[in-house]
Amino acid sequence: MEFTCKAFSDRSYKVHFEWGILHRLRGILESEKLTGPYFIITDKNVYKHQHRRLDEALKGSNFQYHVVPPGETSKSLKEWSRIQDFLLKKEADRRSVVIAFGGGVVGDLAGFGASTYMRGLDLVQLPTTLLSQSDSSIGAKVAINHPNTKNLIGSFYQPKLVITDPSLLQSLPPREFSAGLGEAIKYGVISDPDLFEMLHRNIENVLSFQREHLTSLLSRCIPIKIRVVEEDERETGLRKILNFGHTIGHALEQATGYKLLRHGEAVAWGMLAAGYIAIHRNMWNPEESEKLKSIVVRSGALYPLGTLKNKDIIKALKHDKKKTGKSLNFVLPERTGKVTIVKDISQEEVRAAVDYILQFRH
Amino acid sequence: MEFTCKAFSDRSYKVHFEWGILHRLRGILESEKLTGPYFIITDKNVYKHQHRRLDEALKGSNFQYHVVPPGETSKSLKEWSRIQDFLLKKEADRRSVVIAFGGGVVGDLAGFGASTYMRGLDLVQLPTTLLSQSDSSIGAKVAINHPNTKNLIGSFYQPKLVITDPSLLQSLPPREFSAGLGEAIKYGVISDPDLFEMLHRNIENVLSFQREHLTSLLSRCIPIKIRVVEEDERETGLRKILNFGHTIGHALEQATGYKLLRHGEAVAWGMLAAGYIAIHRNMWNPEESEKLKSIVVRSGALYPLGTLKNKDIIKALKHDKKKTGKSLNFVLPERTGKVTIVKDISQEEVRAAVDYILQFRH
Repeated sequence: MEFTCKAFSDRSYKVHFEWGILHRLRGILESEKLTGPYFIITDKNVYKHQHRRLDEALKGSNFQYHVVPPGETSKSLKEWSRIQDFLLKKEADRRSVVIAFGGGVVGDLAGFGASTYMRGLDLVQLPTTLLSQSDSSIGAKVAINHPNTKNLIGSFYQPKLVITDPSLLQSLPPREFSAGLGEAIKYGVISDPDLFEMLHRNIENVLSFQREHLTSLLSRCIPIKIRVVEEDERETGLRKILNFGHTIGHALEQATGYKLLRHGEAVAWGMLAAGYIAIHRNMWNPEESEKLKSIVVRSGALYPLGTLKNKDIIKALKHDKKKTGKSLNFVLPERTGKVTIVKDISQEEVRAAVDYILQFRH
Repeated sequence: MEFTCKAFSDRSYKVHFEWGILHRLRGILESEKLTGPYFIITDKNVYKHQHRRLDEALKGSNFQYHVVPPGETSKSLKEWSRIQDFLLKKEADRRSVVIAFGGGVVGDLAGFGASTYMRGLDLVQLPTTLLSQSDSSIGAKVAINHPNTKNLIGSFYQPKLVITDPSLLQSLPPREFSAGLGEAIKYGVISDPDLFEMLHRNIENVLSFQREHLTSLLSRCIPIKIRVVEEDERETGLRKILNFGHTIGHALEQATGYKLLRHGEAVAWGMLAAGYIAIHRNMWNPEESEKLKSIVVRSGALYPLGTLKNKDIIKALKHDKKKTGKSLNFVLPERTGKVTIVKDISQEEVRAAVDYILQFRH
């Protein structure tokens, strides 16, 4: 399948989605006049498990790897700066192509690195996780973290191409795969009742990597993400619906120092909390909220929260609120497939929702 | 006068050019919905001489200064990172506006800082030097330097507005003013024979700050720069003509550690060298080349090169060539007002041109 994402300006990029498409990578790159040299940014885990396949796909062309440590802590000024040094040392110039080969962290870090070297090198996103394939590789957001604030430093930078090969997911550790389902489930709630139903019926089949179900999942998530970012690349309006589950989710990540939880896991917990608030406002059908709970529980994305306390989460929420100078926005479902942004959520509602999810913390 | 610069995409920005327009700054900002808070990035010298005027212009609004050391060395990772910290500490958010209040260094540094904070804050260029008013504030190039390479790290980032008030130039030290004439003279050679003639007749009047002549100069340079960058924002073609004088100019800057010369001074020397090559190729009229020499000598932009040697300059040129993986490109005049890019310049031609300018080194 091939999708086109039209950016805010007169530019657009293609998202190629196909099992085993990695084999055809070189031909696709060359047909887009991306002839290299290629500078591949990846992390240690992806390099270990997948580099042979990429070596094979790029055989005969000029390519080099730069390997970063795995995990969110690599979205740092230090690793970004090391990418600039690497590109300079290897004499990358304006013909060079940066390939982000990994999950959301690698996509964000390599994308920001590509966006700033010589005022921007061509970028190809080659996502290897469920989260990056279904979500983060599309939409042009790239960033690193400030010690105090996630994604503070970054830009909107369109890739030239996104190449999505679900066969790359086979080597994912189960936890990584489950975490990736967090954002996929989100797409069901915010935009696609059929996807939501499919997940409710077949989440186990997705988890056991059944090709048919995984294809169905990705081929639904990708166009939703494309449609939302096409309408609002700069996140001034519609794109905010993508933040369903992210208000509490971000607070959970922050309260646990970005170390305990994967992003998709934090979002899964955040969706549970948002669903709780929505049904207690009589905005959403409790039956649907129960379905959401069932899906996220069965997905395995609810990684245990350990000893985290209600007050830690509330403190992180307040920090977030202070930082952005804005009131706390919650994205809440009106019905499955349709969400709205609500700004008048009270302290009590938040506290009750946090208490609710903390019941399931272990 | 008001010019509009249409960017590569569907966006454009206005360049307001008027004596004393600083008084009307707040109204102009508000009419563009840039209501602040305003975060003003400036350097120590500009702050000292001009901040009272800006304080007055922004009276009653929410604004704060961040002051960086003057000079090229501030285009560093460290100063850029300090801007991110400043913005975070002062709780800048997406409504915030960064005002670059200074010369080319401040415009580049503050512009890059604005482009990366929260994926891009609104940016206003408020240039205070002749170089930045006539040239660098327009065209969306922002960058910092890598320890090894000038402007290596940066992006293309359009300002929302450029506000050009020539009355700000009154406090410029004479050396800074002369250096700024370097780029202005360039516009005469590459695109505007009338500007070239005007400079030949009246460079002393410009230097003595005669309003009529300075207005004439800026009102010619600004639309040339706009036209060139509109046609080629990303520097894939036409924009390269702006590099007249820059091949040797960059080498001079590099060979002197970016400390001895102002950028405009290096360009002035580089234009002399390029003119020499052009007449020895019988591309350009020697009479015109003599006029160019007369203008740059009288402008005061030929800051003494001290003990710099031919071989140091050649070494820097080779370094540049190796780094960019490209042959040495020279922009050379075919006639006054029309330049072309020449790629087959020999070592001997370069050496002779460098010997030629070194005659005037003291």
